[in-house]
Amino acid sequence: MKEVNIIKALTFIEPGPVVLVTTFNEQKQNVMTISWTMPTDWEGGIALTTGPWNYSFQALMKTKECVIAIPPADILEKVIQIGDISGEKTDKFSLFNLTPLPAKTVQAPLIQECMACLECKMTDYIEKYGIFIFKTTRVLINESCLDKKMIHAIGDGTFIIDGEKKDCRSLMADKLPPDL
Amino acid sequence: MKEVNIIKALTFIEPGPVVLVTTFNEQKQNVMTISWTMPTDWEGGIALTTGPWNYSFQALMKTKECVIAIPPADILEKVIQIGDISGEKTDKFSLFNLTPLPAKTVQAPLIQECMACLECKMTDYIEKYGIFIFKTTRVLINESCLDKKMIHAIGDGTFIIDGEKKDCRSLMADKLPPDL
Repeated sequence: MKEVNIIKALTFIEPGPVVLVTTFNEQKQNVMTISWTMPTDWEGGIALTTGPWNYSFQALMKTKECVIAIPPADILEKVIQIGDISGEKTDKFSLFNLTPLPAKTVQAPLIQECMACLECKMTDYIEKYGIFIFKTTRVLINESCLDKKMIHAIGDGTFIIDGEKKDCRSLMADKLPPDL
Repeated sequence: MKEVNIIKALTFIEPGPVVLVTTFNEQKQNVMTISWTMPTDWEGGIALTTGPWNYSFQALMKTKECVIAIPPADILEKVIQIGDISGEKTDKFSLFNLTPLPAKTVQAPLIQECMACLECKMTDYIEKYGIFIFKTTRVLINESCLDKKMIHAIGDGTFIIDGEKKDCRSLMADKLPPDL
């Protein structure tokens, strides 16, 4: 995977894809499926909502770090199944044939099969709403997946896959941050 | 527009579309374009990030209410332009030929040209991250737009339009809330 500028983190979160979140609780790597995320700034800030019903929640609270990975649409069924079973008694990397790769700034693993991986440090937890705030510390893109499509969850068990791309840079050139 | 159950609110936010947010500051209706949102629960809770650089920010802070509307892809250029100019000296409804309709639980207007409109009351503002927390008080769907596609912002001036739909309810039936 190729490292790119931190500002690129938002380009993987702003479109609203389903993401995989990996953790390492000092004993075991785990991965969960999440679709409630948003950017909070242009410097890699990300908000993510989850709660104690997820086994990964304890690992997040304890280690204060994770990797947010963007799965391509061709593994949609796997992504749903990852979200449907608990990692408490399962090694989901092995069960779903996902390849964990070492990250650099966090102990949670990257996922080789994903389009991009964001190494993230938790900076805050807003308990009232179950909102985790992360700061992206490293952005990696998988150059062999760049033409793949993201998955968007409707929330009712149906999903939408990325369709047509539109380049509208000329309409909003004055609003775009440099380097993006 | 047809009113539907509050739980449907998340089905318009979870997929990560670009949204239009309307406000009424007791003098003037306004509308802005936002793409940093996420659900926070299954009862219509929504988080939205913005800041004082938006003219609508003051109206949100003052009135503590808004409408979050989901524009269809066929008005993409208009949606970008709405985000590119300030409402301070412009009547954007008139300029962009948008039809404001009266809401019921808030003073901000619905937008007739949108696929769905969520009437929202602000319940909190987390200043450190610019995160507004809203509670959806009413969900309206535009039955003439149900087959239209949502817009997803990449954040760099390019956009992705909804593509193929996948029904995976059978894979996650045990995780779906009733009524959704």
